[in-house]
Amino acid sequence: MSERSRGRRGDRPADREPVTPDHLAARAGELDAADPLAAVRQRFLLPAGTVYLDGNSLGPLPAAVPPAVEDAVRRQWGQDLIGSWNTAGWWDAPLRVGDAIGRLLGAAPGQTVAGDSTSVQLFNALCAAVRLRPGRRLLVTDPGNFPTDQYLADSVGRLFGLTVVRVAPPALPEFLAERGEEVAVVGCAPVDYRTGERYDLPALTAAVHRAGALVVWDLCHAAGVMPLELDAAGVDLAVGCGYKFLSGGPGAPAYLYVARRHQAAFDHPLTGWNGHAEPFGLEGAYRPAEGVGRARIGTPPILALLALEAALTAFDGVDLALVRDKSLSLTGFFQDCSDALLADRGFTVVTPREPERRAGQVVLRHPEAYALVRALAERGVVGDMRAPDLLRFGVNPLFLTHRELWQAVRCLREVVDAGEHLRADHRVRAAVT
Amino acid sequence: MSERSRGRRGDRPADREPVTPDHLAARAGELDAADPLAAVRQRFLLPAGTVYLDGNSLGPLPAAVPPAVEDAVRRQWGQDLIGSWNTAGWWDAPLRVGDAIGRLLGAAPGQTVAGDSTSVQLFNALCAAVRLRPGRRLLVTDPGNFPTDQYLADSVGRLFGLTVVRVAPPALPEFLAERGEEVAVVGCAPVDYRTGERYDLPALTAAVHRAGALVVWDLCHAAGVMPLELDAAGVDLAVGCGYKFLSGGPGAPAYLYVARRHQAAFDHPLTGWNGHAEPFGLEGAYRPAEGVGRARIGTPPILALLALEAALTAFDGVDLALVRDKSLSLTGFFQDCSDALLADRGFTVVTPREPERRAGQVVLRHPEAYALVRALAERGVVGDMRAPDLLRFGVNPLFLTHRELWQAVRCLREVVDAGEHLRADHRVRAAVT
Repeated sequence: MSERSRGRRGDRPADREPVTPDHLAARAGELDAADPLAAVRQRFLLPAGTVYLDGNSLGPLPAAVPPAVEDAVRRQWGQDLIGSWNTAGWWDAPLRVGDAIGRLLGAAPGQTVAGDSTSVQLFNALCAAVRLRPGRRLLVTDPGNFPTDQYLADSVGRLFGLTVVRVAPPALPEFLAERGEEVAVVGCAPVDYRTGERYDLPALTAAVHRAGALVVWDLCHAAGVMPLELDAAGVDLAVGCGYKFLSGGPGAPAYLYVARRHQAAFDHPLTGWNGHAEPFGLEGAYRPAEGVGRARIGTPPILALLALEAALTAFDGVDLALVRDKSLSLTGFFQDCSDALLADRGFTVVTPREPERRAGQVVLRHPEAYALVRALAERGVVGDMRAPDLLRFGVNPLFLTHRELWQAVRCLREVVDAGEHLRADHRVRAAVT
Repeated sequence: MSERSRGRRGDRPADREPVTPDHLAARAGELDAADPLAAVRQRFLLPAGTVYLDGNSLGPLPAAVPPAVEDAVRRQWGQDLIGSWNTAGWWDAPLRVGDAIGRLLGAAPGQTVAGDSTSVQLFNALCAAVRLRPGRRLLVTDPGNFPTDQYLADSVGRLFGLTVVRVAPPALPEFLAERGEEVAVVGCAPVDYRTGERYDLPALTAAVHRAGALVVWDLCHAAGVMPLELDAAGVDLAVGCGYKFLSGGPGAPAYLYVARRHQAAFDHPLTGWNGHAEPFGLEGAYRPAEGVGRARIGTPPILALLALEAALTAFDGVDLALVRDKSLSLTGFFQDCSDALLADRGFTVVTPREPERRAGQVVLRHPEAYALVRALAERGVVGDMRAPDLLRFGVNPLFLTHRELWQAVRCLREVVDAGEHLRADHRVRAAVT
């Protein structure tokens, strides 16, 4: 069933009840009562009294993680010591966890490896992609890409003598139609990390391929909150982090997808010994492993990797189509609540209304964004902001309810009405939000 | 007090008692009774019945780690969520942990950053070093270097169009005297990871500098087991891992040292957003932070990084000169025991006898190395091997005793005499040792 043909709740104006606060509260209750994913919330250890709308920055703690980490520390490391590289499966973890992530990406096994940071994986992927398209002189990135994506595109362009061009995803088809023959690689993301706007990954992948170029997708803000069909869309390479909707923990290892057809020619610069065909042969010359294992780099941070592995069990048996349904229901409902309660308080809804253009967050614009997010946090509603004026609310369907979103929006109105955000200490920009 | 002038126990033939087994057992007891570091052993959670001689591959679990990790998981992540980037000091962790490592390296604060793997740090460091020496065409590595060091030297040479030359550290001064003007960068290690031979880091650094080149040291097998004086020796760049003598856990984050004088010009390819001057300004162009913070890459694996930070407290108040004294006493005693008990059983001591040429391990050669290490492990004596015929015993002075080494060598003789290593299942090479 395609996304457009599937029936949805609450995301089309024609379906909506009149939007009074009472109606919204009632609708939240109805939607939650009918939520097929309601039980998944129990897979997370959520602090009492908090509505957590920052799971697109740091996912909350899955219940499976603490015992897994304790076992990894006390038994695997503490008792079994070096032997755990074999007996506890540490050595295989990057490919095993990679495959677990691959299941969320629409990637058949043997194409995804977990480890390192998104930045490192992006660098490696962009370099390898450029080497697959020799003779082409342009490397395309998105001016709205998360900064690290742009920095690494610039770095790779410099190393290989390519010109880096910034083109926003909506303008890509036209750009590629005009100058596609010059383009080696396009690096972009299917979700705008600021606004939550979603782009059409299969269509853009096809446009890149029509130009004879390769695409490297950054899935940080997409994986785990919507079905992705990397294999079906013919994606070349993709990367993403483990700590947003995958809830793998702070700085959880990232991942790299290398489509099977590119693996034999995947020629990357980070030729660490873990990617060698015979890592324990200790040969002096690099000879890459068969398959995606060659994209392993150095020894991975096992404790963080096993935390991520345990976190991913929160997705066990969960249909990502239902996750997407609930995501659209939640974000659409959030927009409805914002319209009803915040439109006359100086807030603008930035995230697109059309379901197919929405990802897993709702973004509001308000000139006091920073102070408002701080004041909201004091009331237990945790979101974040992006300078200068965006309030960003991550909506993770695995644990959030419509009632919580209703509560969050009502809370935001109360904060504004009470002027709580005007207190001086909210107006100082902290180092990290 | 220099290493050569300092009095040592048991490492000079003239000091030695006649080497009968009884004498060795008695000497072990005497040396342990006089050990000023004996109490440090309590800082590790060691499995009962194990003599752990693989701490140069994976250090054992420091007692400070489990509570630190549990707090990081349950409170910092689970309860405080995204706020912990500020309140729990996650954001500053790479520099804070870097400085803690720097104390073990003879590096003043503000020159060491923790994160990523040794392979990634090496790549970044070699690239940055090459850019600091434009116009020179040679990149020197060591044919005895750990494989990943050689692979990444080859990769960097290829990216920058440099010729990679393999020169062993003892031959470096002569090579540099002849062709030093062509050399951009030398990447090598002060300890041979197979034999445990130690090279003279200050003298080799000086030789590299006389040639006008830069040196990138790999300290994986040196840090934590001997004093290192990176600042005093004028080292340019150095990397190392967190999981050997630092006991930071499996795949613990690595580190990079960038001498202060090189930081302003440190121009590396892994320009992740964490190294930006204003990481939360989310600018589209990379502008490196002042100082060593620019060597930060992507978001680091916080759980692994905090485990490493807790592990490093095992060094609190510990004088590395005493660690080196005990290290030499232990390794010398191990050699004495091997001479007395194993010389007529087909074993050769590979590790140099001269204290100044020994690092933190003792290596024996025997054609049945693999089967012997396996059979030893069944008796609770854990070492490792390096193909084809080296038995490698890591000697971590923070927790090992002379009695344990005596026990290990005696055990090895019993294994040989009983033919325990000849059992069929020891002769199958496992994937990882």
